[in-house]
Formats: sequence, structure tokens, C-alpha cells
Amino acid sequence: MTRQDLITQIKNKQSFLCVGLDPDVEKLPKHLLQEEDAIFSFNKAIIDSTHTYCVSYKPNAAFYEAHGVKGFQSLVKTIDYIKTNYPHHFIIADAKRGDIGNTSNMYARAFFTEMKADAITVAPYMGSDSVKPFLAYKDKWVVLLALTSNEGAFNFQTQRIAHLDNVKEIHLYEEVLKTSKQWGSEENMMYVIGATKAQWLEEVRKIVPNHFLLIPGVGAQGGSLADVCKYGLSKNKEEIGLLINSSRQIIYASNKEDFAECAAKEAKKLQQEMKAFL
Amino acid sequence: MTRQDLITQIKNKQSFLCVGLDPDVEKLPKHLLQEEDAIFSFNKAIIDSTHTYCVSYKPNAAFYEAHGVKGFQSLVKTIDYIKTNYPHHFIIADAKRGDIGNTSNMYARAFFTEMKADAITVAPYMGSDSVKPFLAYKDKWVVLLALTSNEGAFNFQTQRIAHLDNVKEIHLYEEVLKTSKQWGSEENMMYVIGATKAQWLEEVRKIVPNHFLLIPGVGAQGGSLADVCKYGLSKNKEEIGLLINSSRQIIYASNKEDFAECAAKEAKKLQQEMKAFL
Repeated sequence: MTRQDLITQIKNKQSFLCVGLDPDVEKLPKHLLQEEDAIFSFNKAIIDSTHTYCVSYKPNAAFYEAHGVKGFQSLVKTIDYIKTNYPHHFIIADAKRGDIGNTSNMYARAFFTEMKADAITVAPYMGSDSVKPFLAYKDKWVVLLALTSNEGAFNFQTQRIAHLDNVKEIHLYEEVLKTSKQWGSEENMMYVIGATKAQWLEEVRKIVPNHFLLIPGVGAQGGSLADVCKYGLSKNKEEIGLLINSSRQIIYASNKEDFAECAAKEAKKLQQEMKAFL
Repeated sequence: MTRQDLITQIKNKQSFLCVGLDPDVEKLPKHLLQEEDAIFSFNKAIIDSTHTYCVSYKPNAAFYEAHGVKGFQSLVKTIDYIKTNYPHHFIIADAKRGDIGNTSNMYARAFFTEMKADAITVAPYMGSDSVKPFLAYKDKWVVLLALTSNEGAFNFQTQRIAHLDNVKEIHLYEEVLKTSKQWGSEENMMYVIGATKAQWLEEVRKIVPNHFLLIPGVGAQGGSLADVCKYGLSKNKEEIGLLINSSRQIIYASNKEDFAECAAKEAKKLQQEMKAFL
């Protein structure tokens, strides 16, 4: 999917919501557990009920791999279901991969060729040759971890590093932004910035004024939509430049038979809030 | 597997070789491609022919995921085959995972409970809560990326950061070592240090004198076994503290019908070289 397609979808839907598909079997509605593929049944119902309110889905690979081959199959089926039935939704495989060049190539093939996701989240620690293989695919995206939503982000991402010019120190995540934006463009790279660190978005926007940002951490993790929009919109405001992810708040809105309906209500609520910023 | 078990294996086998199982279908012997599960058939033959000369196997998840569900199945079968037939070999799932706490939990379940690997490689960028869930499993290991063998390692890992005491600058990978060694112990954490950066091992050993190090990059990537041993042995030299990985040099020693035999020869050659350091 191209950047322009994504922006068009955001305008049409009046939403920049991404729904995180993180199916934890311990939280699924009990009546689904008898189904042959409970995870896929759950996702299918959530997707069918929320697609009007969001522009993107983000299945996190861990929740599928936890169930071995069967879970991996559910992931493949989920992405295929979205691609077939809602081809205008932007599919982010939240896999946080990254390895030496020839190995990242294999991951790119897994998520772009085999699974047909539009984007994959990638960890930056291994540097350029671990990221570039993903950028070789036309209309596919890297969503690079920059400043994540968790407490552990303060271990390394916010460490101050002496910059090359020795004039001033910058944070590691800023160095990641500065260096990596040369590997791709606004057309094939996005960055993960946690909503729990919304005030840092002002600094982020100085480095990547118009790149799309994927913002997790609104809702269950405590981030605020208003703060994210205040500091995080792209410089070209009409392009928005944000995908805000919500997982638990939407998909676990209820664990009864009405779970899909309740998920739709939560997604709609967020979409309505987002509309005000468009 | 415990640290003591691993050391015992190294002494018994007179080897600290880890064989990387990175099956690229384009490089497999042609006659195997007709088999129902060519990847597993290849691995099985390699394992059966090399097990005498190595103490560890390291399948890299990317090479399996590249083939979707079928590939994931081959990975599961490969780990299961080693576990069943060679239960004293240390199995490292080279998956380079890491996510926020509740999600890393799912990855731990995938690789430790579902697949029964002994260890998993983890990327440090997301910090403590992305690593700790893996350390909660008894006799299972985290192999944390510190200084990797690829060119991209110089993008961020070797950046100089201002340390807390402001007295001196250290490299990011050293900060990763210093901080992360507090999360676990020598009994459940190892570090990846690329053989292509052998001279850096002296600095590494000042921070983690006795932790096991997993050293990729000997062979195809250009690293030298002698250099690695010169700088990288643990302070308690009789404990060795090294697992040296070789993938391509061994598994693609031949792409003819004699591939397993040739792989064994290469593995034996490395084992003989290693013996001299024991």
C-alpha cells in the first residue's frame, strides 16, 4: 500500500485507528474455545465488526507463535482474511524482527511474500543491513522501533550518546531516527513511538516531520490520544502522519457473546475522538 | 540445560562448536527437494552426521518462517528431533525476539514451552521488561545480542554513550552488557559477540568475565577461531565460556549427495581446532 493510499483511507474513514490483534486465549470469550480455531474465529469477528472504524490491523506474532504451528496458521489465516475481505486496510505484522542481511531477507519473504502483510515492525539494534532487505519490496513498509511504550525503553533508548560532531549529546532513539531515515523514505518507513511518552513527540517531529508514526500504548498502557495528537501530528497536518494502535481496550471490551459488538463500540468511540483532529 | 551440564558436554566432546541450521532451499542438495519436507530431511541428515563434533545446534527461525506454516512446522520438527535423539545438545532458537513484557511472555511460551528450545536469542533494544520474561524459565537461557557480526553493528552498537557517572564514555554494547547482566546470571544469560570483532572480546571479558558468549561469524563471515579463543575464553579458562557457531561452512560444504558426510568433515575439522584450546 502506498503512502497516498493510506492517507486517502484515513480521510475517507475519518480515522487513523489501528486495531491490535493480540489474541490471548486466557482472555477470549469462553464460548469460542470450542471452535476448531478459536483465535481465528475471534479475530474474524473483531475484524468484521471494527473495520468501518479503523484503517489498519496489527496482529502481534507472539500471540500466535505461543500456540506453535496451529497458532502460526491462525496468523496466516488472519492476514489472508483481512487482505481478501478488506483490501484497503493496512496490515502491520508486529513481529519485531531483524537479523544480519541474508537472514532479514528471509524474514521479509516470510511476512511480505508468504503472508502478504503491508508492513513489519523491525528492531534497529543490528543496524542498516538488518533493515534494508525489508525496504527492497515495493509498496511495503518497515515500522522501526524508536521509542517504545514500555518501561524498558529507559534502559537504552533514552541513553545520551555523544553525536559525531561532538557538539551535543542526543538520545539513542534520536540517533536511530536520524540514521535510519537515510535508509528509506517517507514512502516506506514509519517509526514506533509509545503514546506513554507523548511529550517526546515534539523532539521526534523535529527529526522526522512527516514520516508516519505508529503509536501504541493508548488505553490499557495509559497513553492519551489528545496528547499524542497535540505533539505528534505530521508537519503537513492534513496528512496526519499517525496510526494510533489500540489492542486490549478494543478486543477485550467484553469476554461474553457480545464481544464483537462491544469491540465495535470501543473502536467507534476512538474513531469519533480522532475525527475531531482531522 | 544447566551451565554445568553444558560445560560437561564441552569437556566430554572436546568441542564448543554450535552448528547453525539455516536451511536455504536455494542451496540445498537438489535431490532433497523432492522430499515432502526437504528442510527437515536436510537438517536430520546434518544433525545425524555432525552431533559427535558439536555441543549445540542453532536453527535460525527466519529460514523456516520464509516458507510459512510448512516452514514453521519444519522448525518445530527439527527442535523436536534434536531433543528426542540428542538430548544433551544445547538448542538455541535463533529468533532475535523481544517485545513489551506481556508479549515477550508469549514468545517465551512459544520457544520454551511449545518448542522446548534451551535458549533463545533476544534483542536488547526494548530493555528489561522485554528480556526478563524469558529468564523466568528454569534452566532456560537468554542469549542477548550485544555486538553482532554484521556491518550494521557499527550504526548503533558501537556508538559512544555518556555513562551515568559522566566520567567516561562507553560503547552502547558495553552498556547493554553492564545493565543486562543484572537481570540474570551466568546460569541463564549468554551474549552474542561477533567473531568478526574478535579484538573487542578483551573489553567484553572485562564486563562479563565468565558468562558464556555465543560467537557467530567464524567461516563464511570471515572471523577467526584462533582470535576468538585468544581474546574470548572466560576468566575461568577451564569453563571455556564460548560457543562458536558455524553455519554455511558446515551445512553447505557440499550440495551433492555427500552433503552430510562433507558437513561432518567440516565440523570435525573445527572440533579438532577447538580441542587444541581445551
